[in-house]
Amino acid sequence: MNSLFQKAQDASIQLAKIDNDTINQVLNDIADAAIAHTDEMLAANAKDLAQMSPDNPLYDRLKLTKERLEGIASDTRHVATLPSPLGKVLKHYTLPNGLDLSRISVPFGVIGIIYEARPNVTFDVAALCLKSGNACVLKGGKDADNSNQAIVRIIKAILQQNGINPDVVTLLPATHEATTEMLHANGYIDLVIPRGSSRLIQYVRENATVPVIETGAGICHCYFDEYGDLEKGKAIVNNAKTRRVSVCNALDCLIIHAERLPDLPALCAPLADSKVTIYADEPAYALLKGNYPSTLLCQATDESFGTEFLDYKMAIKTVSTFDEALAHIRRYSSRHSESIVTEDTLRAEQFIRQVDAACVYTNAPTSFTDGAQFGLGAEIGISTQKLHARGPMALEEITTYKWVIRGNGQTRPK
Amino acid sequence: MNSLFQKAQDASIQLAKIDNDTINQVLNDIADAAIAHTDEMLAANAKDLAQMSPDNPLYDRLKLTKERLEGIASDTRHVATLPSPLGKVLKHYTLPNGLDLSRISVPFGVIGIIYEARPNVTFDVAALCLKSGNACVLKGGKDADNSNQAIVRIIKAILQQNGINPDVVTLLPATHEATTEMLHANGYIDLVIPRGSSRLIQYVRENATVPVIETGAGICHCYFDEYGDLEKGKAIVNNAKTRRVSVCNALDCLIIHAERLPDLPALCAPLADSKVTIYADEPAYALLKGNYPSTLLCQATDESFGTEFLDYKMAIKTVSTFDEALAHIRRYSSRHSESIVTEDTLRAEQFIRQVDAACVYTNAPTSFTDGAQFGLGAEIGISTQKLHARGPMALEEITTYKWVIRGNGQTRPK
Repeated sequence: MNSLFQKAQDASIQLAKIDNDTINQVLNDIADAAIAHTDEMLAANAKDLAQMSPDNPLYDRLKLTKERLEGIASDTRHVATLPSPLGKVLKHYTLPNGLDLSRISVPFGVIGIIYEARPNVTFDVAALCLKSGNACVLKGGKDADNSNQAIVRIIKAILQQNGINPDVVTLLPATHEATTEMLHANGYIDLVIPRGSSRLIQYVRENATVPVIETGAGICHCYFDEYGDLEKGKAIVNNAKTRRVSVCNALDCLIIHAERLPDLPALCAPLADSKVTIYADEPAYALLKGNYPSTLLCQATDESFGTEFLDYKMAIKTVSTFDEALAHIRRYSSRHSESIVTEDTLRAEQFIRQVDAACVYTNAPTSFTDGAQFGLGAEIGISTQKLHARGPMALEEITTYKWVIRGNGQTRPK
Repeated sequence: MNSLFQKAQDASIQLAKIDNDTINQVLNDIADAAIAHTDEMLAANAKDLAQMSPDNPLYDRLKLTKERLEGIASDTRHVATLPSPLGKVLKHYTLPNGLDLSRISVPFGVIGIIYEARPNVTFDVAALCLKSGNACVLKGGKDADNSNQAIVRIIKAILQQNGINPDVVTLLPATHEATTEMLHANGYIDLVIPRGSSRLIQYVRENATVPVIETGAGICHCYFDEYGDLEKGKAIVNNAKTRRVSVCNALDCLIIHAERLPDLPALCAPLADSKVTIYADEPAYALLKGNYPSTLLCQATDESFGTEFLDYKMAIKTVSTFDEALAHIRRYSSRHSESIVTEDTLRAEQFIRQVDAACVYTNAPTSFTDGAQFGLGAEIGISTQKLHARGPMALEEITTYKWVIRGNGQTRPK
């Protein structure tokens, strides 16, 4: 396996010399090929689909269609339109001794991605890594292996046609051993980003010796403050919970100030339309009983809090003070996205300052946590750690920097 | 141990509310205390010194003196004069839907530091972490435990006097178990920085499940190009090799273009004054023989390259082309600091672009790789990885950021 990593590293060094226009041409060619080779990819995808039950929740994620490939092609063309994240002068100054210092953005080198049964990720990652000057080593799910092999074959052909070493996009065997070797490929792989279940993330955290950016789990709260606007609150809670329940930015727990309990039925009313099951603590339950569909109303248990539901389910916690709301968030948040609904500006600013999360919202739903929504143009994942990148990661976040020091024979005093 | 980590985390949350002026006051008070309690610290240090042989190379690093404590006090006061790295607006823009987005620098939370027998690090780290709003959990070397306990006792007293939770500076027992627990304190410790031997760094890399920034090993090269200026080269090579041999930015290998071999004796002449032993490859050996003290001249072996000498020793590699120099650096560099001596601007720019290292120098010695030399005002370590921070790390590098999104009831379309 190390020879594959070595080849990827060699290819990354060559990639560093390719200019942005050439890369954009390659991205557009890949987009064209995603359309031209639709049949080939759908045939490979059909083999994967044949081995999975259509009832499996992964089936839809695994499935490629003509329309989805068109979407992929369009996304790839979009990456070509984005500014290059490389060669940016992040700092520049001259020292009293005349040394000229600058800090310049550069590629990582080789980025490893471990993901599950989503063949579209193969295109996404290849495009974002090419654009940012990084070679990528892909470890996809076994379920999607035929699809991934077909996609990578097509991408490699385009690379070769454009005179780029095809090892800049390397697909590993879909085996557990490949994951293990990638996680220990110090000196070859500069960064690993796992994308998938919390079980995968945990495995990576516990086993990697290479640097990792964790993505994933979002246990997200919305605090409806005593000074919250009811209409905004209704829209925000409903959007955060029901826009898409299977994603990490979806709302898991509504925290309500006790003074506003009388507004709780109105606040939750839109959720009934989407058949959201509510796990309410005692004060909230007392108010919702008779005012929310009884089949969708349960009493909260200890397990209701700190749970990422990824489903039409939401917990409600009642607090007597703002500090109690902060303490609840601190205890249960996964530090992904947190929001407050309040018309009190001071309270909003306190929330911003005191809540430790990648994304802190005032009067807006956590559903906005997304690279494209943030105007970043793309997204390779959402970091839930604090090192290097936090929240949505786009092109800039998969670069590092180097210091460049230009001298004229200066020496450092003893 | 988790209760210690939990207390540090609670203290870090309180620390986030303290303003910069108060922190600066605390730092100045710590500086005063470092002077006022000199006798107490020297007595504790004497106990540590009594258990170590004065011949041990660590002895000098372990030793505190009145002058060194004065230096520490002065460094601590200097940290107080630096601008706060917190609350900086790193990005700010408004989306078409009216959402106001900003990216703001914030503390990590709790930073763990693992270090060896250098009690001055205890002061350094406490000062830099306080200034950057981070609690620190310190795991010092067993050899320095009496000294560290005395220092932390003094710092905690100052914190308490200033109404700051003293758990923001927490000293762990000087045991291997403490290290292990710190490396697995996910959810409590946001970042671990190991400072010390490559054995320590490797242990941390292999065992940590919390995020880590590696520091340390510097295998540094200087390439004297065919267009290099001899006088500059002499000064640069001598300074990089002999300014201080025990530090990570010291030169390990001179690479010389074959066309300039006739200049090699002159290039190396100043090294003889410092009794630098040279391990020369065949072409270089042939030229130095008779032109460099024979007792200091050896033939290079395979082990001469890729070695961090940390001593008055240097390897010499002869290359026929610029590309061969790049390949040698790629193979043996630890990606810490690399330099070229050349008067050819194009060549210099190629070197900058193609060498992958934290710090790339043209016509200046690698000995400048240092936070204070770079004008960063302080240094908590030199990162040798690419994630988050590269090269000298100062206050900015021990912060992270959060996204703040201010809305007015916006929702995300389905």
